[in-house]
Amino acid sequence: MQPFFEIEKKTESKARAGVISTSHGQIQTPIFMPVGTVASVKTVHQHELKEDIKAEIILGNTYHLYLRPGMEVMQNAGGLHQFMKWDLPILTDSGGYQVFSLSDSRKMTEEGVKFKSHIDGSFHFISPEKSMEIQRQIGADIFMAFDECTPYPCEYNQAKTSMELTHRWLKRCISWCGENPELYGHKQHLFPIVQGSVYSDLRKISAEVISEADAIGNAIGGLSVGEPEEEMYRITDIVTDILPVAKPRYLMGVGTPWNILESIGLGIDMMDCVMPTRNARNAMLFTWNGVMNMKNEKWKNDFSDLDEFGTSFVDREYSKAYVRHLFIAKEYLAKQIASIHNLAFYLDLVKTARQHIVAGDFYEWKDSVTPALRQRL
Amino acid sequence: MQPFFEIEKKTESKARAGVISTSHGQIQTPIFMPVGTVASVKTVHQHELKEDIKAEIILGNTYHLYLRPGMEVMQNAGGLHQFMKWDLPILTDSGGYQVFSLSDSRKMTEEGVKFKSHIDGSFHFISPEKSMEIQRQIGADIFMAFDECTPYPCEYNQAKTSMELTHRWLKRCISWCGENPELYGHKQHLFPIVQGSVYSDLRKISAEVISEADAIGNAIGGLSVGEPEEEMYRITDIVTDILPVAKPRYLMGVGTPWNILESIGLGIDMMDCVMPTRNARNAMLFTWNGVMNMKNEKWKNDFSDLDEFGTSFVDREYSKAYVRHLFIAKEYLAKQIASIHNLAFYLDLVKTARQHIVAGDFYEWKDSVTPALRQRL
Repeated sequence: MQPFFEIEKKTESKARAGVISTSHGQIQTPIFMPVGTVASVKTVHQHELKEDIKAEIILGNTYHLYLRPGMEVMQNAGGLHQFMKWDLPILTDSGGYQVFSLSDSRKMTEEGVKFKSHIDGSFHFISPEKSMEIQRQIGADIFMAFDECTPYPCEYNQAKTSMELTHRWLKRCISWCGENPELYGHKQHLFPIVQGSVYSDLRKISAEVISEADAIGNAIGGLSVGEPEEEMYRITDIVTDILPVAKPRYLMGVGTPWNILESIGLGIDMMDCVMPTRNARNAMLFTWNGVMNMKNEKWKNDFSDLDEFGTSFVDREYSKAYVRHLFIAKEYLAKQIASIHNLAFYLDLVKTARQHIVAGDFYEWKDSVTPALRQRL
Repeated sequence: MQPFFEIEKKTESKARAGVISTSHGQIQTPIFMPVGTVASVKTVHQHELKEDIKAEIILGNTYHLYLRPGMEVMQNAGGLHQFMKWDLPILTDSGGYQVFSLSDSRKMTEEGVKFKSHIDGSFHFISPEKSMEIQRQIGADIFMAFDECTPYPCEYNQAKTSMELTHRWLKRCISWCGENPELYGHKQHLFPIVQGSVYSDLRKISAEVISEADAIGNAIGGLSVGEPEEEMYRITDIVTDILPVAKPRYLMGVGTPWNILESIGLGIDMMDCVMPTRNARNAMLFTWNGVMNMKNEKWKNDFSDLDEFGTSFVDREYSKAYVRHLFIAKEYLAKQIASIHNLAFYLDLVKTARQHIVAGDFYEWKDSVTPALRQRL
């Protein structure tokens, strides 16, 4: 049997190229995972995700899926893969982050969180056990331990208390999973989450506790929540110094194209973010040449291809002037085109990064392309 | 050289199967034309229109395109085909209908119409000559004479006065076109429009005047504006008795699937309507088995294919339960799936109607399928 994670090439520093093997196929790492919040990557058809964007794994949000369509429908469908007809790997978050950021009101205890739905105001309770149960019902290939994600900024004592709760909750997650097998005949892998806000000592403690849990892969949460980029890199660096080298590392909720490359440089293997799709819907396109605001007057009469270096059909089939027009006229197709473009770009970004890791010149390459990526066109 | 219109098969009554030949390819009639208001059929990619929906011609709206992107961009692009990268035939309306139905305020004279943009309140003036000029700049294969479209209900005298104005405007349109050639190297064909509201004598007069103009094809306007279905059929029947048999007949703005079949039965060759896309965005799907409201609770746990008789990928790739979920969760993909489904269904409807015309059993077939088409599922 294939091991869950194999490192194909390691640079002299921390970056590495690997392969994750799941019941729904392999993932070449480093990888970016498009976010499919409520069983849909917004504006994108599943076959476009697979064939045009070349996504290898997508993310589903436990909180959203729990509320809609709900677990009765999910189980009747035979899990999320069947429900949305996506036969490649899926990862689900634990629901914790959304409970804390989206619900109208919530009350946290050692036991778990009681919260009010942002949709209909109904009350719900999620505990570590409940999160595991829901994620079994969703049936993602990789699923996350139930954690508390601290906001930024966060007082030291609050960060410490929260981190310790996350560690206690992890034990309950692992214990529940040991007693409750998968539902749909394929393997599910639990990743625990390192917390500790921007405090070095807390992050070190958390990374050690998480490493000791000896899970098949590990995640870093509580970053990309408003802290300066430098803080994010500093903390990631500290944590990846401790997390086991032989296991995949998932940096949650990151980020811009340059954040992605820096994180890969710090030994991260997996990332997800709503940025490529959310910003696309607001007319922001990421390219190798920089960031384009498609509503800008400057594209009005530019009939050249949307992105000459783009990898998806939208880059060749549509011009800058046409896409600008669609945004100005508030046409749905504008959001669709921009979302496909941005996701395809993110996948091309990590694929190219991987090629440079394998070729041995990743860090030079990263430093050479970053200034262009960051510039505003 | 291919004639513009050839009738391949004529039934004993009025229905006929034909072929229209344009510089951008042939159209099998009867045909339904998806509406691409502002250079986009809402939520649908161009390659989906062509390959999945199998559209043979689409419609653009002169009023909308004139305001956005405007004629400077349109001409710089080299016309609408180039601008939106659609290489099959396009038809444009004259702008008249939208000026009368959308603009905030307007003032009509013999010369033309001064109107206020519904977008930014700016003032504009469209005359028959201006409409022709704009439609030359758009460059559609088939374009429409500038007419006044009367509302329903409409007083007899108003309908008569309006019809006479439309007839005078037609002369100006024809005259302008005789003096101003095409801009982009392909042929454009002008269709005049029969008006006269629901008054039999006015419609007869108008059909005779329009026939005498000896255009390459003719259109019937001022229907499907709120009158009862029976009135629409009655007037269409009167008009198609007069319009020349050898020329294509376009019934503007029609309609439901059963309206489409009835109209074909009355000798109509071309139709357009926003219904399949607009209703799709409101969760209404048309199928051979009837009309489905996808928000209905009854689909919640129905994991069967979206439409077992559907011809496009959405019908096989997505289940009823999944599409219901997307509508309930207000996901963009819901509108995209429903729009592709409905348009593909409309194209399948007219294609199947054509097969039955050719086979010689159109009227029996129409009567046998209509009850199912109309029922609510």
